[in-house]
Amino acid sequence: MLFKQKGILFVLSGPSGVGKGTVRKALFKKDTSLKYSTSMTTRPMRPGEQEGVDYFYRSKEAFEHMIENNQLLEHAEYVGNYYGTPREYVEQQLEEGNDVFLEIEVQGALQVKANFPEGVFIFLSPPSLEELKNRIVSRGTETESLVMNRLNAAKEEIDMMDAYDYVVVNDRVDHAVENVQAIVKSEHCKRERVASEYKKILEVSQS
Amino acid sequence: MLFKQKGILFVLSGPSGVGKGTVRKALFKKDTSLKYSTSMTTRPMRPGEQEGVDYFYRSKEAFEHMIENNQLLEHAEYVGNYYGTPREYVEQQLEEGNDVFLEIEVQGALQVKANFPEGVFIFLSPPSLEELKNRIVSRGTETESLVMNRLNAAKEEIDMMDAYDYVVVNDRVDHAVENVQAIVKSEHCKRERVASEYKKILEVSQS
Repeated sequence: MLFKQKGILFVLSGPSGVGKGTVRKALFKKDTSLKYSTSMTTRPMRPGEQEGVDYFYRSKEAFEHMIENNQLLEHAEYVGNYYGTPREYVEQQLEEGNDVFLEIEVQGALQVKANFPEGVFIFLSPPSLEELKNRIVSRGTETESLVMNRLNAAKEEIDMMDAYDYVVVNDRVDHAVENVQAIVKSEHCKRERVASEYKKILEVSQS
Repeated sequence: MLFKQKGILFVLSGPSGVGKGTVRKALFKKDTSLKYSTSMTTRPMRPGEQEGVDYFYRSKEAFEHMIENNQLLEHAEYVGNYYGTPREYVEQQLEEGNDVFLEIEVQGALQVKANFPEGVFIFLSPPSLEELKNRIVSRGTETESLVMNRLNAAKEEIDMMDAYDYVVVNDRVDHAVENVQAIVKSEHCKRERVASEYKKILEVSQS
């Protein structure tokens, strides 16, 4: 890079059971330049957890105040607690030139897209529904009817694919990671992001 | 890939002296899946050259006939001979699922874009005009006034950057090659290219 480029927000999402967490962890082992977006929550801090590392911990009142003031890129309630993505942390990292990486459920990703359409949205797709079912079953914690529920939810989530910029199939974790890395690299070469800066440089060096 | 995807036409272009040929050669050493588009010419075959390898060799009449019938993606005349890119070879390769790679002058790239807008256009940019001047001078075959002419032409060509999809800076050949490879990989993950096929697969495997 010949100039300090603004960071890009990448959002990895896909149906539950597709392996988003596995791909994200494998990606972060290979690529240390991406910043993981730390979520905010109202659930109490557990032993061993750290503010700003595992979560940002806030009171319910503070969290609701942030919702009202549009300070979250997305949020959801789960078992009585809020979870969300604070906008300020993301924007600060981008301003400093760091790429931010969000790994998130489909509903959350669609909220982020509504609040931050300039993000790059990557849909992680299972190679087949058969395979997705196997992965859900192999977690071993679900009854047959729960598996069918989750599979039906997954089908609805797969229908949301059209809201995304890229589709990466998770047939093998290393392939998926390579494709995500290629997307990150190529997005930084997009003409609309860089042309005006390059033109400036090439005119400055003229004189 | 879970299905046979159509190939993509990639066009690498940029001002003369930027190092397009060097980047293309280094890329083809690393990536053997890309098909290089063989040009067509009216100049006579030279000893050691082969039809379909170095060029497709045609008579002036045949070439002009192809121009009239829009069978060339671009063409130019140089020292009394025609040079051009036959559309049929490119389309056949794409249909067979092969990516085609074209390395070409800016004027030719703009013609290709007019004739084949679904191509992916990559502008190879010099890190600075100073550097471009050095590269033109170091070829050693040009007088000072010719160097200035070529540099002025280059400035006009840099202004064409906005017609391209990506800008890759040729600060180091290996960096430029990595970026081009990332672009090739990520373009195959573009949602508009693959979503409908993935959806088909994921619905088929439902039953």
